[in-house]
Amino acid sequence: MTTPIRSLEEVATKARGKKIKLSVAGGNAPTVIEAIGKAVREEVVEAILVGDKEGIIELAKEHSIDPHSFEIIDEQDVTKVPAKAVDLIRNGEAQMLMKGMVNSADYMRAILNKKAGLFSPGEVLTHVTVCEVPTYPKLMIVSDVAVLIEPDLSEKIKMLEYCIQVANALGIENPKTAIISCVEKPSYKIDSTIDGVLLKKLAAREQLKGAIIDGPLAMDLAISKRSAEEKNYHSEVAGDADILIFPNITAANVFFKTLTNLAHGRIAALVVGASVPCILTSRADTEESKFMSIALGALLV
Amino acid sequence: MTTPIRSLEEVATKARGKKIKLSVAGGNAPTVIEAIGKAVREEVVEAILVGDKEGIIELAKEHSIDPHSFEIIDEQDVTKVPAKAVDLIRNGEAQMLMKGMVNSADYMRAILNKKAGLFSPGEVLTHVTVCEVPTYPKLMIVSDVAVLIEPDLSEKIKMLEYCIQVANALGIENPKTAIISCVEKPSYKIDSTIDGVLLKKLAAREQLKGAIIDGPLAMDLAISKRSAEEKNYHSEVAGDADILIFPNITAANVFFKTLTNLAHGRIAALVVGASVPCILTSRADTEESKFMSIALGALLV
Repeated sequence: MTTPIRSLEEVATKARGKKIKLSVAGGNAPTVIEAIGKAVREEVVEAILVGDKEGIIELAKEHSIDPHSFEIIDEQDVTKVPAKAVDLIRNGEAQMLMKGMVNSADYMRAILNKKAGLFSPGEVLTHVTVCEVPTYPKLMIVSDVAVLIEPDLSEKIKMLEYCIQVANALGIENPKTAIISCVEKPSYKIDSTIDGVLLKKLAAREQLKGAIIDGPLAMDLAISKRSAEEKNYHSEVAGDADILIFPNITAANVFFKTLTNLAHGRIAALVVGASVPCILTSRADTEESKFMSIALGALLV
Repeated sequence: MTTPIRSLEEVATKARGKKIKLSVAGGNAPTVIEAIGKAVREEVVEAILVGDKEGIIELAKEHSIDPHSFEIIDEQDVTKVPAKAVDLIRNGEAQMLMKGMVNSADYMRAILNKKAGLFSPGEVLTHVTVCEVPTYPKLMIVSDVAVLIEPDLSEKIKMLEYCIQVANALGIENPKTAIISCVEKPSYKIDSTIDGVLLKKLAAREQLKGAIIDGPLAMDLAISKRSAEEKNYHSEVAGDADILIFPNITAANVFFKTLTNLAHGRIAALVVGASVPCILTSRADTEESKFMSIALGALLV
């Protein structure tokens, strides 16, 4: 049995030497090129940067990165960059996609394109964030902070499946999974409690496999053993969750932004559900977070 | 101009000597009696405990609290306790209500009772939490983590009004207010962004007064100056919010539970919208948090 990975540092360590082929849509973004430079140096990836070639070379030099350490495909028209980067995946020349200096909507559209994208019917494009915080003894695998707005039950099942894949890639077998709501008592007035009941039942009937599921759970019952004890709530998941499935995008988004801004948390994140892991970074993400996302993606290829 | 209160400790200091009359529904709850004992010693309140008299006396002695330091009204029937505690408010014998060892639903029902409750038509019963966390330089006033499930725009306006009242009681004039969503760009797909736009416009047209409002804002833009700078987002509220209005109960609940369980946060909380401040504590709240809620309530009477 593999020892579970318990920190982002271990994610980076495990990803070293993988040399995954990474296609980058718009290489000329400062923190992106720094993160890629580091990922290339540590042999996590071999990178192909699509975009304004001269701009990329200049930016690389500014950040003391050797522009010869990656391949550059020149494309001056920024609206054509995402499709060209996606083509590299479709042609088998790359195994992972990353967003650089292109519009997020254009990037997502290129992934979702029915004819020339990376998306198969039956899949659900969603988002997985791996969070590390000094006050929790292990990683938390969280969905969905960025893509699905109000996921329904079938989408939550896909979110869960992708989270289990990430957990397995981190060496966590049968991840303890909390279906988050604001209370542990089911109420017909609170939809997320009903989804918690249903997902737990699907797991009990073995329609959902590969995880130990409990729900609905309020956040404190999911991640605080003290709270679980004081509320006299006992389950395998309570106070010890590996995976947190959130009821809606605002709750999930508030969670990871509270962690990173007020609790010294760090994250790695991926868009999942496409044929390859896709990295969708935000302007406010640190270079370190972008590097960690590349490393996490490399473990999923 | 008053200096704004920036910590819960200052809330407690300001509440000392107020001697507010507190009516407690079900005095025989361990952490509740400890919190009340402290609030009486510090002259924040004079307490009237309704419930099983012998049980209350015994529990007080167990916690080294002099049972003569408060009045006890004997009521053996636990289902009658909330209404009896509410009666003390209606008769003018008490100015603030607190939940002890009674069922939360019974407690809320007694407050909401049309004939014998504390609730006027036109008001909205909602919940305000004051949060303190070492990583933020001031208090955050948050609504609604516990009562309104999916507040609509009119309910959000009332939430905002009560939060402004709390801010003013803390010496904060014109509190900086963030209407929280997951993005700062309005999208018709995300209801909470639309409410952000509307509330900001209501303030601009002076239909809402007493606060500087910005929205929609994602959490990081509301409370992180670094994030606001990196996203090149400038407003009086960005990175410096006093009040956070959340789109739904799960997002708000996740926020305060992440703060208290993973970010060394502490809270005080009140049910507002009734004729007097009401304290609704959870089993998992610490004795300190219950005491701080009493102190906060005392500032609002």
